[in-house]
Amino acid sequence: MRNIKCIVAYDGTDYCGYQRQGRLRTVQAELEAAANVILKENVKIHASGRTDAGVHARGQVINFLTGCTIPTTRIPYAFNSVLPPDIAILGAEEVPADFHARKCAKRKTYRYRIYCSRFPSPFYRHYAYHVPEDLDLAAMEAAAAYLIGRHDFASFRASGSTVKSTVRTVFAAGLAAGGETTDFCITADGFLYNMVRIIVGTLLEVGRGRIKPAEMAVIIAARERSAAGPTAAPHGLYLERVEY
Amino acid sequence: MRNIKCIVAYDGTDYCGYQRQGRLRTVQAELEAAANVILKENVKIHASGRTDAGVHARGQVINFLTGCTIPTTRIPYAFNSVLPPDIAILGAEEVPADFHARKCAKRKTYRYRIYCSRFPSPFYRHYAYHVPEDLDLAAMEAAAAYLIGRHDFASFRASGSTVKSTVRTVFAAGLAAGGETTDFCITADGFLYNMVRIIVGTLLEVGRGRIKPAEMAVIIAARERSAAGPTAAPHGLYLERVEY
Repeated sequence: MRNIKCIVAYDGTDYCGYQRQGRLRTVQAELEAAANVILKENVKIHASGRTDAGVHARGQVINFLTGCTIPTTRIPYAFNSVLPPDIAILGAEEVPADFHARKCAKRKTYRYRIYCSRFPSPFYRHYAYHVPEDLDLAAMEAAAAYLIGRHDFASFRASGSTVKSTVRTVFAAGLAAGGETTDFCITADGFLYNMVRIIVGTLLEVGRGRIKPAEMAVIIAARERSAAGPTAAPHGLYLERVEY
Repeated sequence: MRNIKCIVAYDGTDYCGYQRQGRLRTVQAELEAAANVILKENVKIHASGRTDAGVHARGQVINFLTGCTIPTTRIPYAFNSVLPPDIAILGAEEVPADFHARKCAKRKTYRYRIYCSRFPSPFYRHYAYHVPEDLDLAAMEAAAAYLIGRHDFASFRASGSTVKSTVRTVFAAGLAAGGETTDFCITADGFLYNMVRIIVGTLLEVGRGRIKPAEMAVIIAARERSAAGPTAAPHGLYLERVEY
């Protein structure tokens, strides 16, 4: 049995999220159906983590064990020939037997794409969050800096979710020039449920002048969901990269 | 009656082109239906020109005569509130009575977006032409330079189309850095049917080393469709800008 690691990109628009949910259209179901055809065996695909409905991935990582003999370099071509065009395998490599896409992930990077323009763009309607007003980008950048480091991010966790620890380490967080869009990128050792979208919802309030950058320290310290801003829409979010 | 000029962007993916065709879904039909609702009158919308099925517009120009009293600055908001999300009005201004979006157009610019990467991208599947091999961009740039000036472009006209003159003036033609894509941009005083797509199909042959840049002079001089390369796919093409 070989353990194969793949990089996967998908347009999340027409999916009910990554994870298999009965008969709903999910990325996992499509990947496992493709694997079934290509590898001629029922494999269980492990991903670095799930993504919600409408959320995209440019660098999701998956792994699966297979007894098939297709050369590793041919695996992306084989999968892409049967996958729907809104999912693509961008690379494959053989990894040691103990590699697990979720359990071994060390850092993840998410990108949240914001389209600032008076009018909406037909081209970004599924791919960036439209903000019709001007945003104070310097204030957003200053606010984002408070996120960097090891903190309890309970304020940025969807209410109702239960995890053992809400402490995470953010390695980088800031705005990146993205052509016609303004992109917020954040790298951490892990993320709570909806954490990036709640952070972005809060940063957008900072950009609109409703929250001062320094209040981010207070919001983090509150450790209460109600202290942070709203949850930003899913369609601006991309799982950008997973590091091991 | 006021004469209103608007800038329109649309994602051509789900349209059978710009021009009204019976009951098919076209951009013109959607715009006129929206005008009907907003202006409460049946207006005839004139565009700078038609675009084919799958072709996009970032700066199409339209005009229409209306007796309605909506302030011009409110027109984009009014239209966008009823238009489907794959069409957006990006601006409106009142123009003299003799302005006509097609007849008065002086220059048009088209962009053709090429995504060069070993594997296809889910995000560009409707928005750029995927080329899995490396292209010789310098050769393509050199070939494009032959297009600039006043020439008979009969070699780059879809066979079967009939126009009085096939002479056009190209003011600029070349590659532009476009982030993850390579974009070919061309500005001319007018374009023959499928002219940009045949030019791009020919330039891609140059990029693949099958046609030498200097052969562009021979292809232009031939004044025969068969001398040029294939017609590139519609989904990489954008009507970028119209000047008056």
